[in-house]
Amino acid sequence: MAELRGCAAPADVMTDAQALRGHCLAAVEASGLHPVGDLFHRFADAAATGVTGVVLLAESHLAVHTWPELGVVTLDVYVCNRGSDNAERARALLARLETLFAPADAERHAVQRGRAAA
Amino acid sequence: MAELRGCAAPADVMTDAQALRGHCLAAVEASGLHPVGDLFHRFADAAATGVTGVVLLAESHLAVHTWPELGVVTLDVYVCNRGSDNAERARALLARLETLFAPADAERHAVQRGRAAA
Repeated sequence: MAELRGCAAPADVMTDAQALRGHCLAAVEASGLHPVGDLFHRFADAAATGVTGVVLLAESHLAVHTWPELGVVTLDVYVCNRGSDNAERARALLARLETLFAPADAERHAVQRGRAAA
Repeated sequence: MAELRGCAAPADVMTDAQALRGHCLAAVEASGLHPVGDLFHRFADAAATGVTGVVLLAESHLAVHTWPELGVVTLDVYVCNRGSDNAERARALLARLETLFAPADAERHAVQRGRAAA
């Protein structure tokens, strides 16, 4: 997981669901992960103008939330390691997305999940 | 987040994308959270027979992955607290889903995320 602050990404990356979707799918594929579906939703009301999106992966999921009014983005990359170790691919995906959003500051959390599901 | 093991849920909850979707949307609404979209994908190959699903929320997202062949389910509930404190709703949603999957054992992780995005 990562929380990105002070994001200098172009406005369309933060507010255009289709543009963000294209960037996310490209980053997923460049990282060697396998999308099986995706859904991106644009918020457009007085309180929120960002995008929430997910890419379902054969390996689990990517979730992205943008808050353009705050310059904030949160990223979740969750992969399972059945069959092969996907941790390096998950790190590569996070790094690609951080580059895309160009934050001034990034805070990362890694959680090693359940034994049986790993 | 929670990893549930030894899940005693009926088979359709673990393997039927539409059945799981209905349970997730009901649990989201009963918890006072607000869905803005959802996507559920059934895996059906030799290596995996489970379902991956997400519900996008006005408050962020729910993600569910089932591994029926292992009796394992992982849950992610991520909420932001802009406008109101949604932590209690997130806990209520996790509790409802744990009841649905009826695990023998549950391992939970809570991560307090970025200051600016909170």
